[in-house]
Amino acid sequence: MAGSSFGKIITLTTFGESHGEAIGGILDGFPGNFPIDIPAVQQQLNRRKPGQSKITTQRKEEDQLEVLSGIFEGKTTGTPIAFIVKNKDARSKDYSHLETAFRPSHADFTYHHKYGHYDYRGGGRSSARETAVRVAAGAFCQQFLASKGIEINAFVDQVGTIKTSVVSTNKAEIDASPVRCPDKKTAEKMQSLIEATKKKGDTVGGAIKCIITGVPAGLGEPVFDKLNAMLAHAVFSINAVKGFEIGSGFDAIEMNGSAHNDLFNADGTTKTNNSGGIQGGISNRMPIIFRVAFKPVATLLQKQPSINKSGEEITLEGKGRHDPCVVPRAVPIVEGMAALVIADFYLQWKAYQ
Amino acid sequence: MAGSSFGKIITLTTFGESHGEAIGGILDGFPGNFPIDIPAVQQQLNRRKPGQSKITTQRKEEDQLEVLSGIFEGKTTGTPIAFIVKNKDARSKDYSHLETAFRPSHADFTYHHKYGHYDYRGGGRSSARETAVRVAAGAFCQQFLASKGIEINAFVDQVGTIKTSVVSTNKAEIDASPVRCPDKKTAEKMQSLIEATKKKGDTVGGAIKCIITGVPAGLGEPVFDKLNAMLAHAVFSINAVKGFEIGSGFDAIEMNGSAHNDLFNADGTTKTNNSGGIQGGISNRMPIIFRVAFKPVATLLQKQPSINKSGEEITLEGKGRHDPCVVPRAVPIVEGMAALVIADFYLQWKAYQ
Amino acid sequence: MAGSSFGKIITLTTFGESHGEAIGGILDGFPGNFPIDIPAVQQQLNRRKPGQSKITTQRKEEDQLEVLSGIFEGKTTGTPIAFIVKNKDARSKDYSHLETAFRPSHADFTYHHKYGHYDYRGGGRSSARETAVRVAAGAFCQQFLASKGIEINAFVDQVGTIKTSVVSTNKAEIDASPVRCPDKKTAEKMQSLIEATKKKGDTVGGAIKCIITGVPAGLGEPVFDKLNAMLAHAVFSINAVKGFEIGSGFDAIEMNGSAHNDLFNADGTTKTNNSGGIQGGISNRMPIIFRVAFKPVATLLQKQPSINKSGEEITLEGKGRHDPCVVPRAVPIVEGMAALVIADFYLQWKAYQ
Amino acid sequence: MAGSSFGKIITLTTFGESHGEAIGGILDGFPGNFPIDIPAVQQQLNRRKPGQSKITTQRKEEDQLEVLSGIFEGKTTGTPIAFIVKNKDARSKDYSHLETAFRPSHADFTYHHKYGHYDYRGGGRSSARETAVRVAAGAFCQQFLASKGIEINAFVDQVGTIKTSVVSTNKAEIDASPVRCPDKKTAEKMQSLIEATKKKGDTVGGAIKCIITGVPAGLGEPVFDKLNAMLAHAVFSINAVKGFEIGSGFDAIEMNGSAHNDLFNADGTTKTNNSGGIQGGISNRMPIIFRVAFKPVATLLQKQPSINKSGEEITLEGKGRHDPCVVPRAVPIVEGMAALVIADFYLQWKAYQ
Repeated sequence: MAGSSFGKIITLTTFGESHGEAIGGILDGFPGNFPIDIPAVQQQLNRRKPGQSKITTQRKEEDQLEVLSGIFEGKTTGTPIAFIVKNKDARSKDYSHLETAFRPSHADFTYHHKYGHYDYRGGGRSSARETAVRVAAGAFCQQFLASKGIEINAFVDQVGTIKTSVVSTNKAEIDASPVRCPDKKTAEKMQSLIEATKKKGDTVGGAIKCIITGVPAGLGEPVFDKLNAMLAHAVFSINAVKGFEIGSGFDAIEMNGSAHNDLFNADGTTKTNNSGGIQGGISNRMPIIFRVAFKPVATLLQKQPSINKSGEEITLEGKGRHDPCVVPRAVPIVEGMAALVIADFYLQWKAYQ
Repeated sequence: MAGSSFGKIITLTTFGESHGEAIGGILDGFPGNFPIDIPAVQQQLNRRKPGQSKITTQRKEEDQLEVLSGIFEGKTTGTPIAFIVKNKDARSKDYSHLETAFRPSHADFTYHHKYGHYDYRGGGRSSARETAVRVAAGAFCQQFLASKGIEINAFVDQVGTIKTSVVSTNKAEIDASPVRCPDKKTAEKMQSLIEATKKKGDTVGGAIKCIITGVPAGLGEPVFDKLNAMLAHAVFSINAVKGFEIGSGFDAIEMNGSAHNDLFNADGTTKTNNSGGIQGGISNRMPIIFRVAFKPVATLLQKQPSINKSGEEITLEGKGRHDPCVVPRAVPIVEGMAALVIADFYLQWKAYQ
Repeated sequence: MAGSSFGKIITLTTFGESHGEAIGGILDGFPGNFPIDIPAVQQQLNRRKPGQSKITTQRKEEDQLEVLSGIFEGKTTGTPIAFIVKNKDARSKDYSHLETAFRPSHADFTYHHKYGHYDYRGGGRSSARETAVRVAAGAFCQQFLASKGIEINAFVDQVGTIKTSVVSTNKAEIDASPVRCPDKKTAEKMQSLIEATKKKGDTVGGAIKCIITGVPAGLGEPVFDKLNAMLAHAVFSINAVKGFEIGSGFDAIEMNGSAHNDLFNADGTTKTNNSGGIQGGISNRMPIIFRVAFKPVATLLQKQPSINKSGEEITLEGKGRHDPCVVPRAVPIVEGMAALVIADFYLQWKAYQ
Repeated sequence: MAGSSFGKIITLTTFGESHGEAIGGILDGFPGNFPIDIPAVQQQLNRRKPGQSKITTQRKEEDQLEVLSGIFEGKTTGTPIAFIVKNKDARSKDYSHLETAFRPSHADFTYHHKYGHYDYRGGGRSSARETAVRVAAGAFCQQFLASKGIEINAFVDQVGTIKTSVVSTNKAEIDASPVRCPDKKTAEKMQSLIEATKKKGDTVGGAIKCIITGVPAGLGEPVFDKLNAMLAHAVFSINAVKGFEIGSGFDAIEMNGSAHNDLFNADGTTKTNNSGGIQGGISNRMPIIFRVAFKPVATLLQKQPSINKSGEEITLEGKGRHDPCVVPRAVPIVEGMAALVIADFYLQWKAYQ
C-alpha cells in the first residue's frame, strides 16, 4: 500500500534510490514457459538511459540489467522475475549541498514532511532513475503482448510550442531522431529548441503520444478500473506528468455529440476514433490512443532562490548533469507503463474466456 | 479485481444497474464513532439527481438514500456502511428497442464482447446512474474530511467554447446557477448554449475544475500511488471523462522550467502553484487543483445510423430523457471521487504519525 | 482493508449487523452469462438458518434472499451480484441488558476498544449472522464450480468427545440427521449429547471435515497464497474456529517421512493422501481434505460473572435463543468459504491457460 | 496476485530460487526514520541458516544479508527496503537427476502441471530456502514492534511423540539447545530422536508454539481479516505446515462453554486464555498463543519408488544434504511471519487512532 507495487495479476514492485547500491524490481505473475529475449529488454533500457545523445544529460549510467530469478534455461518459470540495475556513475558529492536545501518543484519538501528522513542524493527515491525499472518490466510485458499481436509505440509530439500532427507506430521512424519525434522536420526544430534552452540553463516541457494496436475487444473493467482509468493512473505515476487525455481528450469539451460519436462500420470498427479505442471503460478493438503532458524539468542550470529545512532563504546554484527536456527519454517509460496495464488486463480477460 | 471496488483503507464497492431493483454500495473502513449527518448526504445526492433543473434530463428519480448498516444511534460503528438507492422512475419500455442495437460511443458493443449477456436497459451497469453511489460515499468522506479542515469544491469552468477563469470554493456561489459555474455572466451563457443544443437534439461537452483545501503535507505515496495518479485514476473512472490535468496541466508543455518552478515562501508555501498542490506525488499544503474534460453525452435526440448484434445497419431514433450536457450534474461526482481519494490517503498518512 | 472483503478475481464484500435493517453482500467478478438457480442458493441458506431443528436456536429467521443486481433474465451479467437478507425476528429488547456489559469470550470487549461505539444488539457485526452472506455467495460459486466438475461437501465429524471416522461426499447422507454427521449411529449420539448439553444451559464444541473433489492440478500460488494458506485464512475467518488442519494435519507431527510421503501411481495420483490434495501450495488432482475445530458457543443459558464498561463486576443472566453447538449449522458456512477460495483460484488459473 | 507478496500497509514481496543467483525481497511500507540494527537482522537469519548444528542439514550457506535500498545513514527512509541473500554453496549437480523426476510429497508434480517449465534444482522456487527472506523481513518488523513493547517468541514444543508443556518467551532459554525447545530434558530427548531418525535416513515431524506479548487491544479486522485468520494464512504459507491452532485449539472441540469461556478480571484481562489473545478476530491484550504442526521433511536419505514426467516408474536415490526434522530451523520463520502480520495490523490500527 506504500505505493511501490503496480498491477493485479501481473505485479511490478520497485525499489531503489538514485545513489544507493542499486535500483530494481520484482515482476510477479508473468506467464511461465515463455522464451524471453533479454538483449531486447536491455535495448529498451538503453532508449531511456542518460547520455545517449547530446540533448540528454551527460551522466554516464550503463543501466546494465541483471536478472536474479524467474528465468531458467532462457524461459520464464512463472515465478517472480527479479532484476537489478546497479548505480555506477553516482557522483554523490555533487549533491552534498542539498542535504538541507529544498529545491523548488522537487520532492525535497514533501519527503521531508512525509518521512522526516530521506536520501537527498540526486533526488533519492523521487528521482526519475526509478523509472528504469518500469522500462525493463514493461519490456518483458511488451514481448508477451507482441506474442498476442499487441504493439505499443509512443513518440514525442510536442516540445515547447513545436508540435506535429504526424502519427507513427514505427520504432525505426521514431528513433531516427534523438528527440523521438517521427516527423523529421519537426524533430529538427524540437532539437534546436532543446539545445537553445539548454544553453540558457533552462528547461522546457513536452508531450508524448502513445498508440496501442491489436488489443482485442473486452479488456478493462466497467466501473473503477476502466481501461482508461488504469492508463491514467499508470501514466500519471511517471515523474513530471501534468496531464493525460485519451481519444478526443480536451478537444471533446468543445464538441457536439453529433460530431463526437463514433459511428460503426458493419464489422464493428468505427469510422472515427474519438473514443480512443475505449468505450465504457472497455477496449473496442480500435487503436488505443492517449497523450501525456510533461512539465519542464525542475532542475535548472541557473541560480534560483529557495529555502532550507530551517526556513532560511538560500540560493541554489545550478550544478550537476540534467536533461533540458524530459520527453525524448520518457518515450520508453510511457510504453512501459502502458504495457504493464495492457498485459495485466489481458490476463484478467483471459480468466473469463 | 472486477473493478467495482475503489480505495485501500477506506474502500467503496458499488453495485447496480440503471433499471434493476436498486443501486448501492458498501463503504468499508470508514472511521467509527463519527457522528453522521444523513440529510447532508442526501443533499449532495440531490445535486446529482436528474430532473433538478430544465437543463438536465427530466427523468424523475428521487434518489432516496437508505442506509442498511454501519450507523447506530447516529454515529458510525467502524463497520461497513451499506446503502441503497431504489430505482423508481424506470420506464424500461423506453429501452426495449435497444435489446440488440449497439448505440454509437456507448458501452453496448464492448459489454456484448466482454460478457456475452448484459442488461441493455438504460445502459445497465454502464449507466452514469451508478455514480449516485459514489456521490453518497463521497459525501460521507467529505464530512469526515471537513472535521479535519479539508474542503473539496468543484464547479463547471467550461461548456462548449464558453469558459470562465473565475475560481470559487463557495458552494452557494457555485450552486447559484443550475449550470454550477460560479461566474454569473458566464453561467448564463453556458445555460443558453445548453438550451440551444438541447433544442437541436444535440449534446455538448464541458469541463470541471476541482479545488481541495486544507490538506496537510505528506499525503500520497511516492511511486505508483502518487496523489496525482490516484486522483487521475479516480476521476477517469467517471463516465464520459476524456482528460485530466493537474496544476499547470497541458499548459506546462509550452513552459520553461524557470517560469514553471514554484518558488518557496519562508513558511514553505509557494509563490505560484503550478504543481497543483502536489510535488513528487505528495501533497505540499498548497491547494490541490485539477481540471477534468467531459465529452458530449452520446445519447442524442436525433436519428443516428448504427449496427446491431448481427452486424446489420439500423437507424437509432432519439428517444428517452437525457442530459444535453453532463457537467452540471457531474460536479458532485467529481467531488465524491476526490473525497474518496483524499480520505483514503489521510488514513494511510495517519498510520505513520 | 477493513476486512469486509475476501478474494481477488471473485470478491465478496459483506455488510450488516445482527439487528440492523439487513445483512448482505456484493459478489464481484462472478463470470457472466452463467444461468443461476436462485432456489438452490436459498436452499443452501436454509441449511444455515436458525430454527431448522430442535438442536438449533429457536429464533425464527426466514433468511429470505433478495437479489438486487447482476442477474438479468436468469443469467449472470458479469457485473456485481448484490443481495440482501432482511433481519426480521430481531427481538432487540432481549439485548438491552448488554448495552454496557462485556460478555465473556465474545467480541464486546474488543469492539469497545477498537471502535469506541458499537451495535451491541445480538453481537452486532460480530454475530455469526453475517455468515449467511458467505453461505449465499458460496452457493453461487458452488454452482459455477459444479459446472466445472468440482464438488464441495462438508459434514460434522465430531461433537464433544463423540467422533466418527466415516467420510462422505453425499449431501443427502449428510443431511439425513439434523446434526449433519453422515454416520447414522454416531449422529444419534451427537444429537443426544447436544440435547443433554442444552438442558444444562451449557454448550459444546465440535469439528467439521470438508472434502473437495474434481479440482484440476495447478490451483494455488506457490509462496504466500498457497491453496492451503488461503483455505486456512478463509476458514479461520468463520466465527468460533480455533483450529485448522489439512491432510495428515496434526497427526503429521508424530509421523516419519517414510510413512508420510504420498507415493505416486503411474497416472500421477497418489497411493495415500497425507498431502490433502495440495503439494507446494498447489492442487495435485487428489481430493482436498481439511478439518476445522469449533469452540463451544460462548453464550450460555446459565448465570456467569463478568464486568461492564466501567470495570464493575456484574452477573450475566442466560437469556435469548442460542445454539448449544454450532457445527450442524456451520457445515454450509465451511462449504461457502471453501467455494469462494476454489472459485477464485480457478479463475486465476484460467488466466494462464 | 501470483502470491509472492504478503501484507497490506507493510508488504513483503519475495523472489528467488534455491539455486539461482540470489533470493531476496522488497519490504515496502516500513516506517521511516527508524534506526535499524542490521547485525540483529543477520543474527535472526543465522538462526534459520543450514549447517548451524549437527541436527540440521550440513549445507553451508552463509546467508549473508545485503541491503540495497531504503536505509540511509543507519535509519529507514520509509521507502522500500530491498535486500538479497546470494546463493553460494549450491551444488547444482546434486540435482541433475531430478530434471524429469517427480519426488513424492514435493512440488515437482504440481509445478510441472502449473507452469510447464520449472527450475528443478533443489526445489527451485518451492524450496524452503525462500523462507530466509521472510526471516529477514520479519526481523525488521520485530525491531519495530519491540519499540512498541511487542515481543514475539517461538519454540519447539514437540518432535515426533516427544512433547513438552513448558512455555517460554526467553530467547536465550529457547536457543540453549540446538533443537530450540526451552525444556532442557525434553530438548535432549528430541535431539536424540532426531539423530536416530537421521541415521535411518528418515525424517520426523514436529510442532512449534509461538507467543506474542504486549499487543494492545484492537488489532485485527472483524470479518475476513480477523487477526487469527491472518496468522493462520501467514503460518500456513510456510513450507511443510499441516495444522494451525490458536488458544484452546483442537482441544476446544471436547470442551463445554462453561469451561471454555474466559472470565474477566476487573482490569479487563481474563482469568484463562482459551481465546489465545483474540476475541471476535481482534486482540484483547492477553498474550497471543498459537501452535503449528509441521510434517516430516519429504526428502529422505533412502531409496523411494516414484514416477517421472513420462509416467515411468523410477527409483529415487536418497542424496544431498537435508534436515531430518524441520522445526528447529523453522522457529525464526514462524516468528518472522507472525511479525509481518502484527506489524501490518499495528499500522492499520494506528490509522484510526
